[in-house]
Amino acid sequence: MSQIDISTIKTPPQCCADFCLIPMGIDSASVSPFIAQVQTLLKASGLQYSMHANGTTVEGPWDEVMKVIGQAHGMLHDQGTVRVHTDIRVGSRTDKHETARSKVASVEKILSGQ
Amino acid sequence: MSQIDISTIKTPPQCCADFCLIPMGIDSASVSPFIAQVQTLLKASGLQYSMHANGTTVEGPWDEVMKVIGQAHGMLHDQGTVRVHTDIRVGSRTDKHETARSKVASVEKILSGQ
Amino acid sequence: MSQIDISTIKTPPQCCADFCLIPMGIDSASVSPFIAQVQTLLKASGLQYSMHANGTTVEGPWDEVMKVIGQAHGMLHDQGTVRVHTDIRVGSRTDKHETARSKVASVEKILSGQ
Amino acid sequence: MSQIDISTIKTPPQCCADFCLIPMGIDSASVSPFIAQVQTLLKASGLQYSMHANGTTVEGPWDEVMKVIGQAHGMLHDQGTVRVHTDIRVGSRTDKHETARSKVASVEKILSGQ
Repeated sequence: MSQIDISTIKTPPQCCADFCLIPMGIDSASVSPFIAQVQTLLKASGLQYSMHANGTTVEGPWDEVMKVIGQAHGMLHDQGTVRVHTDIRVGSRTDKHETARSKVASVEKILSGQ
Repeated sequence: MSQIDISTIKTPPQCCADFCLIPMGIDSASVSPFIAQVQTLLKASGLQYSMHANGTTVEGPWDEVMKVIGQAHGMLHDQGTVRVHTDIRVGSRTDKHETARSKVASVEKILSGQ
Repeated sequence: MSQIDISTIKTPPQCCADFCLIPMGIDSASVSPFIAQVQTLLKASGLQYSMHANGTTVEGPWDEVMKVIGQAHGMLHDQGTVRVHTDIRVGSRTDKHETARSKVASVEKILSGQ
Repeated sequence: MSQIDISTIKTPPQCCADFCLIPMGIDSASVSPFIAQVQTLLKASGLQYSMHANGTTVEGPWDEVMKVIGQAHGMLHDQGTVRVHTDIRVGSRTDKHETARSKVASVEKILSGQ
């Protein structure tokens, strides 16, 4: 492997992320109020997002997607949550433009053809 | 900590898992046919499941949920995929019965009250 | 796709999993005592395991690996933790026998050849 | 919940992330050469990092950590990998400064006291 000039490497212009955020060190086992707050933050971000039972899908440029997830941590910290853990699944591809919606549609198309 | 008698410890009678499976060492960047196969397997399992853009939620007893995800690996291996990677988020709780549906509903209830 | 006879599909005889367990609804942000408990459970399981900063790697037959992670949930529930969340990365492959140790060694070999 | 002024919310000044990157659409099941490349990128980033069997831990300011993971995607895309998937576990806390090393040490301290 040759030397890497890191300053020339870009982050993906588009990605699809799915994150599951967990506030820690809070007395209650219910986290819905926190997740609701995060949804409100996502709405304010202007990015495409959609919540499911174990996370939230958010799409857009890598830097913007990761920034808003980091802001979710920052917002909860500001409100007094001392520790936040998040699991993020993120994918990027260069061969075609893919959205959360088109990914599900591809599988459903195959299934309906059975 | 005292000694642990592992034979007496049970796995949760109910859990909610969300898994994202990736077949590896295949020539194509598209994985929809594999994911469609896995959906068919889930249907055959009799467990509650629902697909989203970055994974599939499946609910039931821990042992059954983990078995069917392992069978998804086994099925793809049988069909020639030499390597399979899966990311699983799984939760269990003892304070209340919770479903994938009720988790989303809790957050939506808060959001609609804004 | 043809019909699936799920009863004939096996789970992998060997897998390498990496899990990160989070007890929820506890009022301390520190989880070390819980993680230490889980390490003790893993020791009692007889499976190969090794802890790192963000999880624990455990290797063995799929069913045994998933059972012990489920028992970690069960053990913490028995001790009063009402909610437990775990993120598991798990891989299986049929083309060669691979261990946690050999995976790291493969990358280090390439790096040392630079 | 009140209105959110997203422009005022910061990302965490420090975080500990653990990521597992998978190049997709490549016909080899072995990914070591890709992971080695990513290690070289991390070295060039100047951030603290350490590889384990199922991922790499990297620590630093949120924006820098997420940028370098995004650059790993970008680098592999530039080299011809059309699809990259990454799973990231990331935590931030405000109650104390914690490093990958100190997290492991906390658990080991408890275990050695048994």
